[in-house]
Amino acid sequence: MTTESLLHLLRQTVGDAHVLTGAGLERYERDWQQRVHGKALAVVRPASTAEAAAVLAACAQARVAVVPQGGNTGLVAGGVPDASGTQVVLSLQRMQAVRAIDAHNMTMTVEAGCTLQQVQQAAAQAGLLFPLSLGSEGSCTIGGNLATNAGGTQVVRYGNARELCLGLEVVTAQGQIWEGLSGLRKDNTGYDLRDLFIGSEGTLGVITAATLRLYPQPVAQLTAWVALPDLQQASALLQLARQQLDAGLSGFEVMNQLALSLVAKHLPQLRPPMWQSQPWCVLLELSDSQSEQHARERLERLLEAALQQGLISDAIVAASVQQAQALWHVREGITLAQAQEGQNLKHDVSIAISAIPQFVQQANAALLQAWPDVRILTYGHLGDGNLHYNVQHPQGQTPAQFNARHGQAISETVYALVRRFGGSISAEHGIGALKRDTLPQYKSPVALQLMRAIKQALDPQALMNPGKVLAALPAQPGAQGGAE
Amino acid sequence: MTTESLLHLLRQTVGDAHVLTGAGLERYERDWQQRVHGKALAVVRPASTAEAAAVLAACAQARVAVVPQGGNTGLVAGGVPDASGTQVVLSLQRMQAVRAIDAHNMTMTVEAGCTLQQVQQAAAQAGLLFPLSLGSEGSCTIGGNLATNAGGTQVVRYGNARELCLGLEVVTAQGQIWEGLSGLRKDNTGYDLRDLFIGSEGTLGVITAATLRLYPQPVAQLTAWVALPDLQQASALLQLARQQLDAGLSGFEVMNQLALSLVAKHLPQLRPPMWQSQPWCVLLELSDSQSEQHARERLERLLEAALQQGLISDAIVAASVQQAQALWHVREGITLAQAQEGQNLKHDVSIAISAIPQFVQQANAALLQAWPDVRILTYGHLGDGNLHYNVQHPQGQTPAQFNARHGQAISETVYALVRRFGGSISAEHGIGALKRDTLPQYKSPVALQLMRAIKQALDPQALMNPGKVLAALPAQPGAQGGAE
Repeated sequence: MTTESLLHLLRQTVGDAHVLTGAGLERYERDWQQRVHGKALAVVRPASTAEAAAVLAACAQARVAVVPQGGNTGLVAGGVPDASGTQVVLSLQRMQAVRAIDAHNMTMTVEAGCTLQQVQQAAAQAGLLFPLSLGSEGSCTIGGNLATNAGGTQVVRYGNARELCLGLEVVTAQGQIWEGLSGLRKDNTGYDLRDLFIGSEGTLGVITAATLRLYPQPVAQLTAWVALPDLQQASALLQLARQQLDAGLSGFEVMNQLALSLVAKHLPQLRPPMWQSQPWCVLLELSDSQSEQHARERLERLLEAALQQGLISDAIVAASVQQAQALWHVREGITLAQAQEGQNLKHDVSIAISAIPQFVQQANAALLQAWPDVRILTYGHLGDGNLHYNVQHPQGQTPAQFNARHGQAISETVYALVRRFGGSISAEHGIGALKRDTLPQYKSPVALQLMRAIKQALDPQALMNPGKVLAALPAQPGAQGGAE
Repeated sequence: MTTESLLHLLRQTVGDAHVLTGAGLERYERDWQQRVHGKALAVVRPASTAEAAAVLAACAQARVAVVPQGGNTGLVAGGVPDASGTQVVLSLQRMQAVRAIDAHNMTMTVEAGCTLQQVQQAAAQAGLLFPLSLGSEGSCTIGGNLATNAGGTQVVRYGNARELCLGLEVVTAQGQIWEGLSGLRKDNTGYDLRDLFIGSEGTLGVITAATLRLYPQPVAQLTAWVALPDLQQASALLQLARQQLDAGLSGFEVMNQLALSLVAKHLPQLRPPMWQSQPWCVLLELSDSQSEQHARERLERLLEAALQQGLISDAIVAASVQQAQALWHVREGITLAQAQEGQNLKHDVSIAISAIPQFVQQANAALLQAWPDVRILTYGHLGDGNLHYNVQHPQGQTPAQFNARHGQAISETVYALVRRFGGSISAEHGIGALKRDTLPQYKSPVALQLMRAIKQALDPQALMNPGKVLAALPAQPGAQGGAE
């Protein structure tokens, strides 16, 4: 099939208005950090699963690669085309239906193009909670959240996107529809295809809809902010909080002084509290199923115990929802504040919670020995063992120059330690294009072999988001599609 | 390689004493329900992962099939060889090490052959909880629990075996070791191999060890037993309990009158309470992280609200741990009581929780119209939407004769309704050999195609537990092993 016949077929499938070609497609072609600038053959915007399946079948027939895209808010350039101008971007953004809410079963079925915020709001309207929560929730889509197994701030209580999904609808590389939507909490009828597609970053098929797990809304939610002398104390506070609050602990975020100082510098209106007195602060959230008073008593009991044990030096508890939101805004402001300070070297790592203080100590020592003036921002989801361990250029130097010159060596230093501690070089951001060539150095060769075998089995023509997660492989000789 | 050379090589690998051949191997060759009687070429008992890998490599070279086996307590004959006498049973029972416990990270790494009870006890000794709990926990192994994604009685709070596992060590069909053990709660570095092996029933590789997620031990645990007029009320009680107790709700089991009457008949010493007054009883468990008193107040508040709303007619709360255990023994006694009544037709189904009352009503009506005298035992994990909907022969008839004559039609009637309600024909038992030929009628053809593609990719010689889950396929021409 020629390119022209393919485009003609695609226009017949989704309508002329939804096959975009030519100039003006930058928002689909570059990642939002603007690290990668690609060029699409076309951007195709199906309105339904049937249309998406027809698009994939046509592309398979024409042997044209497909790059699925949601809100394009990813951090590893996993949803943008390469520069060849030969790849079709499949935008799911028109598929925004909330297909069903079953409040009694505590599930909802939504299409991939719903933003995370739309999903949260639809759940709230049914009196329930969809707990996934991230900075980009206003524009990221649930399809993208699942394709990348997004994490966020509530993982310590509710798990990652994976744990919040009960069933999927997927279009395969051959354009077939797997109708795996399900509100079942137990189903042992064969291989776990759901979890295979979740986190595969569009390289095995396209998620078009999902059945999500909902929770009762907390009756009361309280947020505390505490100052601490070191990470060891933060880690001990986490242990105490898990013991006393159990599932009531719904957030546990740690931030070092440098991270908060950048918020104070670039976003002074957010007024980060306590950061000048101690090297570390923790934001701790309690979600309670009984009452505001019960929540307050529990939280105060925890903080008193922590003060008595010498784990914390100071603490405040937000007195209102507004105050709690203001504290969360400080935490979420770190991303923007560090961007304003100049592009930095990001490391989204996870380590066993028990080893985190030691990891940070050794990583800091190794970096400061080789690059004495770098500034290390350490913050993140301590409750999940997930740190954003970011390295900012020395003051007085240009970020772009410094990163170009030292970036690779710095990241290798960090990742070597991550490996030594049995950690992960991508806790929640995924691999995409940006970490694809780094992955083989840190992942088990057997795991990579298994991944490649699965990729070839489900996408023998190598057309699904090629070059993401795994380096693009040539199509199997004679592969014509069909999963068998 | 000849059979004799293979056996020689296996003896060299694991020692003469651990390659069992000839007579006296029945306990490895038949399932514990004694529905399938197979014949093994040999039973091989490796002591370590390296030995297991060498065994699999040798079998791959000799093109001999391997049937992994744990405690051999499964309900679908997934762990026993066929009758050909050509398959090697790989028993993991000698691999029983608890390799590590990290109390601060709340994880433990154990070998596949540990019994579930050993795992629970090792966690308890570290002051933590491993919450997976099933009737066979004294003899089933954690490797088998993971290979079948076991469920049990605590799923409503803690999830299935899948949700309790953070990392795996697996020997592939080619005898390679995937070192995927990990205590990480977040790791987005590629496809979710862990969840692919979990629940694959030994058909893709052999789980040799796992890193498990632990929880704080509850400070107090209370058990209530209530009587109810119908399933609709039970379902409404569940909704109320989830709302009021949230994560505190750790068990919600429902039992119909017939199930309890069989316990009263065959196991009278267990003394099931209240079953004569109402058609249904519910066992409800609250796990509390504060205190016995707090737990009691919460539970009493719940039961008062349920009484006021007319959901329940009577309730007791166990006054001691012994009383609570006695109530659980009644629930667990149903399996034995029904076996003593005569072999029945088991249906381990799941349905959206909201649809369960309607499903049971329609299934009862359909069965009683066609077979007016059958006796329907309905019990199970209502909190997870998982019912054991078992059909017992009419009184005065012989179970074997009745089941042989009507079994298939009865199961088809039940499963047709399960399909109409979007449910699963195997909620927690798996597929194994017994449900293998039923599965294709109820599973999406696209899902089956994807499963076969994955099977061929990871096990191209078709040597891993052939004939389980999927019908045995011929090996790919020229397939020599190697996952690529």
